[in-house]
Amino acid sequence: MPQDGLTTRQRRRQAVLAVHTGHGKGKSTAAFGMALRAWSAGWPIGVFQFVKSEKWRVGEEAALKALGQTGGPAVAWHKMGEGWSWIQRAGAERDHAAEAAEGWAQIKRDLAAETHKFYVLDEFTYPMKWGWVDVADVVATLADRPGTQHVVITGRDAHPDLLAAADLVTEMTKVKHPMDAGRKGQQGIEW
Amino acid sequence: MPQDGLTTRQRRRQAVLAVHTGHGKGKSTAAFGMALRAWSAGWPIGVFQFVKSEKWRVGEEAALKALGQTGGPAVAWHKMGEGWSWIQRAGAERDHAAEAAEGWAQIKRDLAAETHKFYVLDEFTYPMKWGWVDVADVVATLADRPGTQHVVITGRDAHPDLLAAADLVTEMTKVKHPMDAGRKGQQGIEW
Repeated sequence: MPQDGLTTRQRRRQAVLAVHTGHGKGKSTAAFGMALRAWSAGWPIGVFQFVKSEKWRVGEEAALKALGQTGGPAVAWHKMGEGWSWIQRAGAERDHAAEAAEGWAQIKRDLAAETHKFYVLDEFTYPMKWGWVDVADVVATLADRPGTQHVVITGRDAHPDLLAAADLVTEMTKVKHPMDAGRKGQQGIEW
Repeated sequence: MPQDGLTTRQRRRQAVLAVHTGHGKGKSTAAFGMALRAWSAGWPIGVFQFVKSEKWRVGEEAALKALGQTGGPAVAWHKMGEGWSWIQRAGAERDHAAEAAEGWAQIKRDLAAETHKFYVLDEFTYPMKWGWVDVADVVATLADRPGTQHVVITGRDAHPDLLAAADLVTEMTKVKHPMDAGRKGQQGIEW
């Protein structure tokens, strides 16, 4: 038992920072599976997608949004690429670095306001890797986040400082994939 | 392009057998995340839990059942331990091997009847490992399943014959876990 002065109940209510990394499948999928559990715990969910593809995650988005409309906790789904929901910038040139920075700025606002209790920062390792957001700022912001806000960050090549800051790190490794055998991605499975 | 005589559309509709194994977290969670996508694709979901704990997966069960009641595809959730839903056997001695065999027998019936389109056989590697279900029967039944029924099997120590039969195998590896640091499992995260 750790000598941290906390009760068991308090230790069960600590905020978790989880990272799903590695080159295998399941990183984001497991994060959305965790969102199911979090939603059942009564927690508002915030998803921030740092990807540009329109194909991926459409199913998860539809299902989690459907859940968010059942009268349980709210589900907010924001995505870069199609434009963050809080930004209207018709006709402007796309600037991925600026969009990623805007997404992170919104996450910081939401963390400060405790808007959600469970955050999925999907593929967020890439803007960190590419220098679009500042790694030290991410680590410091997450370390200082108020209340009990759980955060899951997914993506390959997670920065070592992020891994060091995380409470839970899982690496998904590809052992075998149907596309290795020339098979096509399957509707309902791959997207 | 494989010389299998199929059109691209047909290749996109092939049934997938996925196995999530390894000692890390996220095996079942990723399977339930996949269920979100499958549900959005319009597919009835069948979950068969081969575990005895009452604590685990309660959140996923509640959330997926809530989804199943939104008017979209049905979600059926069966579990060993509390008794499969189709078996009433009040007062009988518990026999885990027999219960596992009964669960597998029901899965075979459902596959034959094409009851669901997406199956999660949660922790099914263990009854296979322990000899409660016959590995050759599982592999042959899955190989011969009719229609387009996708199956995800989770659990550690997946049998080599199952891995050989699978289209997609992902290994989840623990890199870092909060319990290593003496932290307690977190409500809404761990269960």
